[in-house]
Amino acid sequence: MDFSLPPALAELQARVRRFIDEQVIPLESDTRQGAHGPEPALRDELVARARAAGLLTPHVARDFGGRDLGHVERAVVFEEAGTSLLGPVALNVFAPDEGNMHLLQEVATPAQQERWLRPMAAGTLRSCFAMTEPAPGAGSDPSMLATTARADGEHFVIDGRKWFITGADGAGVAIIMAMVPGAGATMFLAPMDAPGIVLERNMDTLDRCFPGGHGVLRFEGLRVHRDDVLGEVGKGFHYAQVRLSPARLTHCMRWLGAARRAHEVASAYARERQAFGQAIGRHEGVGFMLADNAMDLHLARLTTWQAAWVLDQGELGLAESSRAKVIVSEAVWRVADRCVQVLGGQGTTSETVVARIFADMRAFRIYDGPSEVHRWSLAKRIMKGLPA
Amino acid sequence: MDFSLPPALAELQARVRRFIDEQVIPLESDTRQGAHGPEPALRDELVARARAAGLLTPHVARDFGGRDLGHVERAVVFEEAGTSLLGPVALNVFAPDEGNMHLLQEVATPAQQERWLRPMAAGTLRSCFAMTEPAPGAGSDPSMLATTARADGEHFVIDGRKWFITGADGAGVAIIMAMVPGAGATMFLAPMDAPGIVLERNMDTLDRCFPGGHGVLRFEGLRVHRDDVLGEVGKGFHYAQVRLSPARLTHCMRWLGAARRAHEVASAYARERQAFGQAIGRHEGVGFMLADNAMDLHLARLTTWQAAWVLDQGELGLAESSRAKVIVSEAVWRVADRCVQVLGGQGTTSETVVARIFADMRAFRIYDGPSEVHRWSLAKRIMKGLPA
Amino acid sequence: MDFSLPPALAELQARVRRFIDEQVIPLESDTRQGAHGPEPALRDELVARARAAGLLTPHVARDFGGRDLGHVERAVVFEEAGTSLLGPVALNVFAPDEGNMHLLQEVATPAQQERWLRPMAAGTLRSCFAMTEPAPGAGSDPSMLATTARADGEHFVIDGRKWFITGADGAGVAIIMAMVPGAGATMFLAPMDAPGIVLERNMDTLDRCFPGGHGVLRFEGLRVHRDDVLGEVGKGFHYAQVRLSPARLTHCMRWLGAARRAHEVASAYARERQAFGQAIGRHEGVGFMLADNAMDLHLARLTTWQAAWVLDQGELGLAESSRAKVIVSEAVWRVADRCVQVLGGQGTTSETVVARIFADMRAFRIYDGPSEVHRWSLAKRIMKGLPA
Amino acid sequence: MDFSLPPALAELQARVRRFIDEQVIPLESDTRQGAHGPEPALRDELVARARAAGLLTPHVARDFGGRDLGHVERAVVFEEAGTSLLGPVALNVFAPDEGNMHLLQEVATPAQQERWLRPMAAGTLRSCFAMTEPAPGAGSDPSMLATTARADGEHFVIDGRKWFITGADGAGVAIIMAMVPGAGATMFLAPMDAPGIVLERNMDTLDRCFPGGHGVLRFEGLRVHRDDVLGEVGKGFHYAQVRLSPARLTHCMRWLGAARRAHEVASAYARERQAFGQAIGRHEGVGFMLADNAMDLHLARLTTWQAAWVLDQGELGLAESSRAKVIVSEAVWRVADRCVQVLGGQGTTSETVVARIFADMRAFRIYDGPSEVHRWSLAKRIMKGLPA
Repeated sequence: MDFSLPPALAELQARVRRFIDEQVIPLESDTRQGAHGPEPALRDELVARARAAGLLTPHVARDFGGRDLGHVERAVVFEEAGTSLLGPVALNVFAPDEGNMHLLQEVATPAQQERWLRPMAAGTLRSCFAMTEPAPGAGSDPSMLATTARADGEHFVIDGRKWFITGADGAGVAIIMAMVPGAGATMFLAPMDAPGIVLERNMDTLDRCFPGGHGVLRFEGLRVHRDDVLGEVGKGFHYAQVRLSPARLTHCMRWLGAARRAHEVASAYARERQAFGQAIGRHEGVGFMLADNAMDLHLARLTTWQAAWVLDQGELGLAESSRAKVIVSEAVWRVADRCVQVLGGQGTTSETVVARIFADMRAFRIYDGPSEVHRWSLAKRIMKGLPA
Repeated sequence: MDFSLPPALAELQARVRRFIDEQVIPLESDTRQGAHGPEPALRDELVARARAAGLLTPHVARDFGGRDLGHVERAVVFEEAGTSLLGPVALNVFAPDEGNMHLLQEVATPAQQERWLRPMAAGTLRSCFAMTEPAPGAGSDPSMLATTARADGEHFVIDGRKWFITGADGAGVAIIMAMVPGAGATMFLAPMDAPGIVLERNMDTLDRCFPGGHGVLRFEGLRVHRDDVLGEVGKGFHYAQVRLSPARLTHCMRWLGAARRAHEVASAYARERQAFGQAIGRHEGVGFMLADNAMDLHLARLTTWQAAWVLDQGELGLAESSRAKVIVSEAVWRVADRCVQVLGGQGTTSETVVARIFADMRAFRIYDGPSEVHRWSLAKRIMKGLPA
Repeated sequence: MDFSLPPALAELQARVRRFIDEQVIPLESDTRQGAHGPEPALRDELVARARAAGLLTPHVARDFGGRDLGHVERAVVFEEAGTSLLGPVALNVFAPDEGNMHLLQEVATPAQQERWLRPMAAGTLRSCFAMTEPAPGAGSDPSMLATTARADGEHFVIDGRKWFITGADGAGVAIIMAMVPGAGATMFLAPMDAPGIVLERNMDTLDRCFPGGHGVLRFEGLRVHRDDVLGEVGKGFHYAQVRLSPARLTHCMRWLGAARRAHEVASAYARERQAFGQAIGRHEGVGFMLADNAMDLHLARLTTWQAAWVLDQGELGLAESSRAKVIVSEAVWRVADRCVQVLGGQGTTSETVVARIFADMRAFRIYDGPSEVHRWSLAKRIMKGLPA
Repeated sequence: MDFSLPPALAELQARVRRFIDEQVIPLESDTRQGAHGPEPALRDELVARARAAGLLTPHVARDFGGRDLGHVERAVVFEEAGTSLLGPVALNVFAPDEGNMHLLQEVATPAQQERWLRPMAAGTLRSCFAMTEPAPGAGSDPSMLATTARADGEHFVIDGRKWFITGADGAGVAIIMAMVPGAGATMFLAPMDAPGIVLERNMDTLDRCFPGGHGVLRFEGLRVHRDDVLGEVGKGFHYAQVRLSPARLTHCMRWLGAARRAHEVASAYARERQAFGQAIGRHEGVGFMLADNAMDLHLARLTTWQAAWVLDQGELGLAESSRAKVIVSEAVWRVADRCVQVLGGQGTTSETVVARIFADMRAFRIYDGPSEVHRWSLAKRIMKGLPA
């Protein structure tokens, strides 16, 4: 058992930390922030800085310009990236692209990788992952998948409707989950400008850190060639799980960084602001919140690292990532909420970055499986006598 | 002991409920919503509808066009108003005007009432309450008041800086708290277009329901005639308390209504949306959240009613309103948070009103005294052997 | 709406408070405390004192020597009684006798009342209520009732096994719930010395305040005459509900008193004990716990009163009593737990009464329906659109 | 970073697990359980079994018959021991002896080690640690130490009063903390049968797992030779800290095991017991409690391991052990409380081991520093900008 970081990883951590502090945080006050994440020009500048710093897309294979980071290494690097809401965009490790790249690397054909993964890894193309559907389609329950892909010669014809499609607006490629009658759920790759893909609208959400926001997509007779099937027909749910465990964990990593940042801002404020005769953090009512933050950050980090380590051992880690997702999403939420409280009125304003972190983070207890679905799934394991 | 509503009050409750449902909620999708509350044109339309329905400014004296509602009556009526974020604006019982009118009615001279209270009650003039200051001035600790009002003949000359001044942008009058050297904290009335009042900027906040948002004000040599002192010189903190107990409670009332609305939306969704073979509310993981909502709404309502009843007995009710403020602000926050969770992804979007309620409500655990200050003050009472 | 106590009730409250303080609390250090509640001799002394004070069995009809208290009146009186764990025994309002007397008054024939209710009300006979069964019988789910009562001429023959039968050891009469084939659940009255009733053992439980503790009973061919059916054959579940709503509430009342006592002990300690330079209650970490106690006691009391008031209006109040049971049992538990914490090491010892209250109270979140069953039932109401 | 157990440790873990399951748990129903821990005869049998299994006192140096376990190794072994409340007694790693042996090994002279540590390690002598004092002496605040040790030639004369002295009854030796005027807090070793040591009484506590219970001691002119000073005069607080960090952690380890046991009992019950048509664990209301248990056990284990690893790096680990103590004591308490709830009525009885674990565990949030003191100390670190 060993809780230390290998020297090379500690060195990389320090580099990323410096990069975020010096190159990214100053851009937080840049005006090119849209209602749906940083505008393309700002994103390009962030990516250019990360490329110059040698930190772009560190998780993909060296072939694609990355550092081939393992999961524990990602945990360390992505936490640092997350300390600015712009950090994951800069390093090109934001959702859903980070997970999509992971999936393409695992499952796509070399041709598909050249066409889509290479420019994504280079930070010149964005993607989206089109799975979630409005009622009565698939939300938390993937078995309710209502989008269909009917075979028609060498093509499939896709019809259906998706929403909460993060990054749809501005994406160059979509990974589409659809049901092939008789064969099962299947993933397809399609350029977003293909006829038959309609971006109905962007949703108005509490969060703003995801480039492109969250869109509602309609597929109307979208024709996809069978070469654009991702992996095998009928294996869509399996690939979703290949993508899911690591994707859940990388959310934990990034939000852990964001919560740490909020805690640092709140702590600094608690040291400075006076009330009732002393710095407010000297009042236990505030000081205990800071102490609880420290404990929540600590347990969230340990839990993330351990689950990442399990993935690094080659396991699928579904239970571990479920467990980590609940523990971390709830712990960092408590941290963010306390930071708002410590900051008082300012906590609810853009005077500090905390209100933005708070609002952006709320959805984390919901996406990639709400806490309730994970608790249910852990309970089922316990009822079967499996480790949970 | 009696928990029933008198028939006249029950009838008024029903009228307000119908009014909100039929006249106000349809305007929630009106486009004239600004970043800082409804735009003036929308506000005017809401006020006109309430006036037509005979429900405008119901809490002020009949002389000023109101219904002279007691505190328990306000509890019932304001909860109904709160079921739409536009409801308090329509009935002209939003903060800070509702509390300011209460204060003017209690403390102002007849001349001051004619000049300021009458148009406020008529819904044609808005006001603001300028007390909170940026560091190192008065935040949670009022004794740190840094704004000064120096006597100069028949005038006072006010200098200082205030922030979180709700409704400043667009207000016609300000109630200003300032320290008169040698005499103590004092309240002043000043028209917002007086030379020496500068609205530096509007703050960017999570909430959007307050007309005019929250401004930063600077007073530079603002001259106020001694006739414009509100009440007596040196009694500012006393008047702040006169205003505070009822004002805290009316926040409880309005936000209770908002939480109830969120719960109704979430419950309706839980009845309809299917997952894993049944309506999601049939899953205990969701159903228990609904049950907890019902319990939190219930205890928040009882606590609000009881504190209002104490005020109706003629007591100042500082401990009761402290206690109620903590209990209710935390209970309704739990409700709002659960409603977001029940709605899943949609809970974080403008697809329903819940995300707006959630974001707007966060500051309620902070303003009019954060929970920590109230707990501290309750603890001090207990340490002295006083009822708490 | 009115939150005041009528003068006569306030006067009764004061009398009971004095009685408990002067006559009962001094007996808490009496050595005649058994592992299963006060020993008979101690109980007799307590009852004699209450009789002398005119406070014995105040909830039953005047015919039976009581004061015919309504539910709100019980709320006030039983809370006072509960401030000593011996108080409910003294006033003869402990469980299950208090609820059994209520049930007999509502349902029993005059002859049954003479035989059983009269001596119970006089404090000379104890009773038990035999419903709960070990697996695979009826626990939280009453429909699993496994004890049978087969008709045999003018008699029924009862066979089965019950546990958690509070007060069985030393009781003179049992109310037995059994299934009559073809007719449904039915209640029977039987003297505890009847052949066929076997007290297998007393259970070893965390609590010690219930006279007679909790027993395991076996019925072996117990013959009960049809005149000893309580109410009508087949209406057992209905009567259980008649008993249940008020019985749940009287638990709330008594435990509220116990929690208040614990809070008083903890507050006194927090005022006195010094650490780190001041009384420990001046440290917010402790002071906030006291403040939270005050708030929990307050909301528990309001919730109890409101539900009692609903019963006083003649309603069955199942939803109200479910809701109150969850709110109160969880609130007073938080209070008891915080009091242990405030007292530090002493909180876990018999140096104060708090450890005993804490241990005795734990089961309150379980009996008369665990919180989970009540949440489920509230959720079902919400799913049906009923008020909850 | 590595979360795996080295093979030798995994093997030792398996051996201890088997030992507890086969040799210790069967003795849980042995009647030789006193009100204050297992009676001496039962303790002797447990120790004999551990000795035979080669598992006695595994944490001390090989010289003293142990295995010289590091802190991470203790974490793994003591968790297993903790799965029976008798396990730590069997392995001779219960409090306070386990920590006392650690302290003697670190600080005592060879002669002191021969006299006291050797028989303690052999399981033939018990010890106690006399530090905590009744008001107005040292409780949570060690600076209030009131027991004095006045120099008198080659001796010190100790006067004072101590309580909550775990294991005092039956101990052969005491480590006594007393204030040497002019020199500071100092530790002394004294045989318990020395004239001047009076065991006033044993305290009546919720817990029963500590051999000897918790006693009240009085020192009346106790003469201790200067050779019986433990370490150096004036360094008592320093040694207390040397003892404290590991001692806090070993509590975490043992109680983690106890909580795991409770969770296993509750899970087994939830799989078996039927209600409302299915096993109760299939109801989410119960299943979610099991899931939360699994998550709490997981994060408690990771936190304990990490803090133990820090100690293994040679650090004092005061912040880490503070943090771990709060996280673990609160997490395992939640687990124990949920297990009681899952078991329903049985959870509050001796039908299973859970009620005992629950009652015994309550004090863990208090001793070795209540949560509030640790939060305060973490907050102070944060206010100074130190890692917490």
